[in-house]
Amino acid sequence: MKIDRRRLEQSIEELGRIGETPRGGLTRLALTDEDRRGRDWMVARMKDAGLRVSVDQMGNIFGERAGAEPLPPVMMGSHVDSVPTGGKYDGQLGVLCALETIRALSAHGVRTRHPVTLAIFTNEEGARFQPAMIASGVLAGKIALEDAYNARDRDGLRLADELERIGYLGPEPCVPRAFRAYLELHIEQGPRLEEEGLSVGVVEGIVAISWSRLTLHGVQDHAGPTPMRSRHDALVAAAEVVTGVRRIATELGGDLVTTVGSLVVSPNIVNAIPGRVALSIDMRDPQDATLDRALPLLDRVVQEACEREGVRYELEHYWRVPRTPFDAGVVAAVERAAKASGAGWRRILSGAGHDAQYMAALGPAGMVFVPSRGGRSHCEEEFTPMDDIEHGANTLFLAALDLAGRA
Amino acid sequence: MKIDRRRLEQSIEELGRIGETPRGGLTRLALTDEDRRGRDWMVARMKDAGLRVSVDQMGNIFGERAGAEPLPPVMMGSHVDSVPTGGKYDGQLGVLCALETIRALSAHGVRTRHPVTLAIFTNEEGARFQPAMIASGVLAGKIALEDAYNARDRDGLRLADELERIGYLGPEPCVPRAFRAYLELHIEQGPRLEEEGLSVGVVEGIVAISWSRLTLHGVQDHAGPTPMRSRHDALVAAAEVVTGVRRIATELGGDLVTTVGSLVVSPNIVNAIPGRVALSIDMRDPQDATLDRALPLLDRVVQEACEREGVRYELEHYWRVPRTPFDAGVVAAVERAAKASGAGWRRILSGAGHDAQYMAALGPAGMVFVPSRGGRSHCEEEFTPMDDIEHGANTLFLAALDLAGRA
Repeated sequence: MKIDRRRLEQSIEELGRIGETPRGGLTRLALTDEDRRGRDWMVARMKDAGLRVSVDQMGNIFGERAGAEPLPPVMMGSHVDSVPTGGKYDGQLGVLCALETIRALSAHGVRTRHPVTLAIFTNEEGARFQPAMIASGVLAGKIALEDAYNARDRDGLRLADELERIGYLGPEPCVPRAFRAYLELHIEQGPRLEEEGLSVGVVEGIVAISWSRLTLHGVQDHAGPTPMRSRHDALVAAAEVVTGVRRIATELGGDLVTTVGSLVVSPNIVNAIPGRVALSIDMRDPQDATLDRALPLLDRVVQEACEREGVRYELEHYWRVPRTPFDAGVVAAVERAAKASGAGWRRILSGAGHDAQYMAALGPAGMVFVPSRGGRSHCEEEFTPMDDIEHGANTLFLAALDLAGRA
Repeated sequence: MKIDRRRLEQSIEELGRIGETPRGGLTRLALTDEDRRGRDWMVARMKDAGLRVSVDQMGNIFGERAGAEPLPPVMMGSHVDSVPTGGKYDGQLGVLCALETIRALSAHGVRTRHPVTLAIFTNEEGARFQPAMIASGVLAGKIALEDAYNARDRDGLRLADELERIGYLGPEPCVPRAFRAYLELHIEQGPRLEEEGLSVGVVEGIVAISWSRLTLHGVQDHAGPTPMRSRHDALVAAAEVVTGVRRIATELGGDLVTTVGSLVVSPNIVNAIPGRVALSIDMRDPQDATLDRALPLLDRVVQEACEREGVRYELEHYWRVPRTPFDAGVVAAVERAAKASGAGWRRILSGAGHDAQYMAALGPAGMVFVPSRGGRSHCEEEFTPMDDIEHGANTLFLAALDLAGRA
């Protein structure tokens, strides 16, 4: 049994038009009108497929295909929000392969013991509301509903208000739920599968992640008549931090990655010495212990840069996720499915956070990776060849069938 | 004869309320509603003072007090726009001391040979529309009217449309005009007068200024699964440029000042490697030759930083103003006036550009400086003690009277 490649390809094209950028990428930020249109399209397809659709208090959407027995479901999911000028594969592909799995089960007339549920999680990217994966975080009981509701975007808009505005503030409690297994197909977002010519990654777990925010308070002044000796330039200190954050990865080596992704200058005009800079620091490593060594180095980088320039600062390590190992039984099922699908495959670790991370705290979880061309993602050039997608979708389909059991 | 300190102080307080920030600073960006209200207030006061008010095609406002003879006027002016969260002295003080000079002439019943004209120039700061001093630049024939009209702010709004919207797109041609002398009172925006305990700076000229813009094109990618070895991070390259721009000032030394005031990251989210960074470079020195040495150093800093990180770039040195010496006769008149006012004074060079710079290209020009507390400006803490303002205003008054001649 297989999924229908043509039907899957068509759904990727259709959903990809909602929020499409002129250069073929995707801008579908969480809880915007584009997100609403993407959700509406998905809900319509889920209903077409005969699923019982429900929405919870965080706007997470669930569509259940009944099983033969009153057992917890095999859940498959991902997200439909994107980063700004992102790609058409991150998130969307996992949701559509899950949809295709359900369509294929019905097309083949398969009845499963466990129900099979498609899940779409709100605001996975964290591009609009922070932190990322906020809605699976609430579901897993790791983030308070109230805190999530009060998250604000750059324009000061509240997550809860935006959920309501687009019509996805649902009635179902967003609380832990039982499942037989949680499966998520996703693009690798790194170069390994492509480099080795493989179609499928059997994901063993997710790296440890740490997010910090830093605000530097210099002295805003005129860029002309202020002598160099009297300056306290927040951006000069920030530049040393950016360089220092890169140096931490070089020094500790291994698989550690460090990134300053966001940096905002105030007042940000040509002829004023920057008075304030706010920036983010993202650090990830397969080992929690590496982050334990990297964070004090970051503290020192910031302290030294600020002392040198004479600026005050606030540094907050506000989000930390330990390494997430996936369930051995689910990983084994994904591996069997990959073999059975005929795909070239390998075991792999995820460098990015996914909703599967929070779901793993609630029950047995695992993931299927497909390659990212050039290792690229979160950009318009994000791309996965259809041959690889087909292998990945068949792996997801066979793993879900394996775990749900034939009735 | 003297100006009326109390009347001047009151006008500073009144105009300072328009666009006042909660912390006592000023946000009155060019051609916003606040700018319109500031202009309306000034025009009403100018009419109260019996001036003939006219507005030109760039929104520059002129108010003429007739002279006894058909001669070119002594013009006094400055601007009423501010930077974001700027102060209440930059620009506004020059306009109000000019108004007070005219009020004092009338209060003392003085008739002058030359007319005396108050001028308010549009968008001096360059905080909203670039370049700075755009309207005196058009008046002096250095910037084409069409180019100025097409300048756009960050929201894409056109200068000409905004001029029209606030009702200050005037009918008078914005072309060179004859004047006996142009005088501008302004805050020093540097620490020298305060450090030496002086009230008045007799300004001999303005430093040479160079503005450049740099765009860095890296590769936008996911901050998690992208190994350090595959990265082309536009912000890492930009950080090296910021550090390098600071180093140019350290290496060349003397009075050279270098600043990266504006820096914008794209897509600017925590978990994406920055794909694009745009930043500004401002360099100033009393000697044109120093900038001629600094610019090639900047070229090299940018080239090396970009080569190291493997990012493309575009660097444009788009604005250059040579050192502006003021007219010897006008400077001498200001010096006589400073002595006569009883102020402690010194000769000084301006580190900031002013409308006087463009006016100096058309005729004899000069400036009067008053101290900036802590050397600070373009910030809410900007402050000049009233005793110094009084000395400065009396210097302006006596110099204007000297140059206009008693009838």
